[in-house]
Amino acid sequence: MVRDVRMRGFADRADLEEVEAFLDRHVRTLPSESVPLLDCFERVLSEPIKSEVDVPSFPRSAMDGYALRGEETFGASDYDGIRFDVIGTSLPGAPFLSRVAPGQAVRIMTGAPVPEGADVVVMAEVCEESEGGEAVLVSEAVPPKKNVGVVGEDIQRGDLILSPGRRLRPQDAGVLASVGRASIPCVRRPKVRLLVTGDELLPAGSMPGGVHIVDSNSVVLRGLLARDGAEVLPFEILPDVPEMIRGVMAANDSDVVLVSGGSSVGQEDHAPRLLAELGTLDFHGISMRPSSPAGIGRIEERFVFLLPGNPVSCLAAYEFFAGPTLRRLGGRSGRWPHRRVRLPLARKIVSSIGRTDYVRVAIEDKMVRPIATSGASILSSTVRASGAVIVPREQEGMGEGEEVEVLLYDDELGSSEFDQKEKVESP
Amino acid sequence: MVRDVRMRGFADRADLEEVEAFLDRHVRTLPSESVPLLDCFERVLSEPIKSEVDVPSFPRSAMDGYALRGEETFGASDYDGIRFDVIGTSLPGAPFLSRVAPGQAVRIMTGAPVPEGADVVVMAEVCEESEGGEAVLVSEAVPPKKNVGVVGEDIQRGDLILSPGRRLRPQDAGVLASVGRASIPCVRRPKVRLLVTGDELLPAGSMPGGVHIVDSNSVVLRGLLARDGAEVLPFEILPDVPEMIRGVMAANDSDVVLVSGGSSVGQEDHAPRLLAELGTLDFHGISMRPSSPAGIGRIEERFVFLLPGNPVSCLAAYEFFAGPTLRRLGGRSGRWPHRRVRLPLARKIVSSIGRTDYVRVAIEDKMVRPIATSGASILSSTVRASGAVIVPREQEGMGEGEEVEVLLYDDELGSSEFDQKEKVESP
Repeated sequence: MVRDVRMRGFADRADLEEVEAFLDRHVRTLPSESVPLLDCFERVLSEPIKSEVDVPSFPRSAMDGYALRGEETFGASDYDGIRFDVIGTSLPGAPFLSRVAPGQAVRIMTGAPVPEGADVVVMAEVCEESEGGEAVLVSEAVPPKKNVGVVGEDIQRGDLILSPGRRLRPQDAGVLASVGRASIPCVRRPKVRLLVTGDELLPAGSMPGGVHIVDSNSVVLRGLLARDGAEVLPFEILPDVPEMIRGVMAANDSDVVLVSGGSSVGQEDHAPRLLAELGTLDFHGISMRPSSPAGIGRIEERFVFLLPGNPVSCLAAYEFFAGPTLRRLGGRSGRWPHRRVRLPLARKIVSSIGRTDYVRVAIEDKMVRPIATSGASILSSTVRASGAVIVPREQEGMGEGEEVEVLLYDDELGSSEFDQKEKVESP
Repeated sequence: MVRDVRMRGFADRADLEEVEAFLDRHVRTLPSESVPLLDCFERVLSEPIKSEVDVPSFPRSAMDGYALRGEETFGASDYDGIRFDVIGTSLPGAPFLSRVAPGQAVRIMTGAPVPEGADVVVMAEVCEESEGGEAVLVSEAVPPKKNVGVVGEDIQRGDLILSPGRRLRPQDAGVLASVGRASIPCVRRPKVRLLVTGDELLPAGSMPGGVHIVDSNSVVLRGLLARDGAEVLPFEILPDVPEMIRGVMAANDSDVVLVSGGSSVGQEDHAPRLLAELGTLDFHGISMRPSSPAGIGRIEERFVFLLPGNPVSCLAAYEFFAGPTLRRLGGRSGRWPHRRVRLPLARKIVSSIGRTDYVRVAIEDKMVRPIATSGASILSSTVRASGAVIVPREQEGMGEGEEVEVLLYDDELGSSEFDQKEKVESP
């Protein structure tokens, strides 16, 4: 048993805005890496992409029909069709290789190359092919170029297709495929080292019992990190042994270290001291609730976030500081990653001037209802909650009926919480 | 070269609403499967989850401080502290095992078990420990139960934690961990067979050239399928050989078959006939633009979607029919999976009564601008577009200045397209 205990409070708590300004100053988008085409969906493009080819690279039929010379159809009508000799077929990937001469036509499929000599495709619906297939009667006049996609119609060689910063959509990946890209320059995903300590913790998947609880923080953090595009390095729960914590913290193998537990000012809270020794403990103690014991610092280029062990504090500290940092490292926006809604408060929220509050709320009957349990240890409250309301430092609270902004916890508006035409604000 | 060509139009096109009603009648949520805890994030819960344990399972300290009998602090103040003998320490996972008697206190850390006999934790900030650590002076009166989390404070044995249909958030996974779950019953992800045909197609990652183009449809579809929670079975591009297409279509190894290409009524369009032979071709030809050649049917319990080969038609047909079906099979909502916004039209949209139009639009200066190129082969238009406007069958078009709903292509509102306070509607 440890006897030499010195417990102390935080000497001085930083304001949220100071911490955010610090992160603003230091966060840089990570360098580029090459990503296989099929893995680029949702990644952030790091370089402009220009096409090296024309798409299509051949004149292509936009219809099933007959390729021929458009001017030869002039005068054709339902009553007075014009006859062409059918001299062959052009299929996608299997073109007709000769020239179409006057009076001739080639059967053609959508997407097939339009043969030389032809300048239109007459759609099949206004054509009648003879029984033997040697001729076709065209009953509509078609102006030249009709139903023919010209070379480069979709994309021209040299076109700028996509700009850096783009979060790649499925169709973006499709266009990148169509211009022949096999790999795509993307912002590297931030690598994260999870450092969870606590002699009381059992690994996720264990049954809790006696004085042991299950480590839920790493589970929550893994979900948040997946959402924010980070790559999590392998991890295991560490005992509260300073040498082991120091070893993991010192390893230069990540962009961000998230320390969960042991971050406060109690006797088992080694992380702040170790961070100060290995790098800088730029902030320790933040005037917010929950998460006030959070700490932030750097070791070389790595960001280190000391997240309180209490699960709600851990979640809130991640969302305020680590999440935006990780998204920005990965080239995304640092803003709240889900929707925000503005709705009236069903009950007042009490806070204190000088402290930022993170209040879990439920949305019921289009009203925002603060969740009574404010305990930072009550993770189930974040399951019952629809999201959080932030009470800024300069406010004492928010009044009943006041319209407040809710940061929703997910994008599932499918529940009964919202009607079809609910007013929703963008972030 | 194929000589026996019979090209024909669609005899009768179905209305969009008929197809949607058909899908409504047949779609069922897939059965449950057991998912490892760490993989359950974003999955859809299939069964109610009740807790088999109390969390915490022991009275737990919410503060760093001293555990003692609260009534013994009555009368304590800054000027008149009350002295307690410190008889030991309780740490998380390493409790103090004896009983706290009157006049005694135990040092305690946040999260540690509160020893028997004690009923409060006095926060360290109002305590002063003697130099030798054998005593503590408490300078604040603390009512019983203060700073002690009771057994089951977070979750009680038997509590319903989560209900079926929930798309699991990071914190949900955390709560599931904390009650000792190692695996979670979730709706099975739909399995999808991609069937891409076309002799003109090169696999994604190839350089296009000559009369060959790169298969971009499978790339776009893979992104959309990932978004919609589907699992894609291994695939390769098939030649336009009916026996091979039939073999893949007939295989009973998926929930949904997506056929891209060869779905129209031209000579190389084998898929509709094969579907009709193997199962039912319930719809072929839909009164919409693009995607009118789309087809929908079933083989046993499998849904088969015949998606046109033109990339925009393929995308639109997926979004109208396949996407909602897949999301609903997987237990999600069938509705548009991204945000919708309502903004005025910068230019009129012309359509036809009796036909549903899918119009790609850009959002510029808070106006909706239809993209001039309406060609179904111009995939790059969907990269330039912010989303799509649907012109319903009963409308001839939409007028300049009219407020229309845009189905956004993604949730990235970070660009210049939207201001902080843009009016956004929920789906």
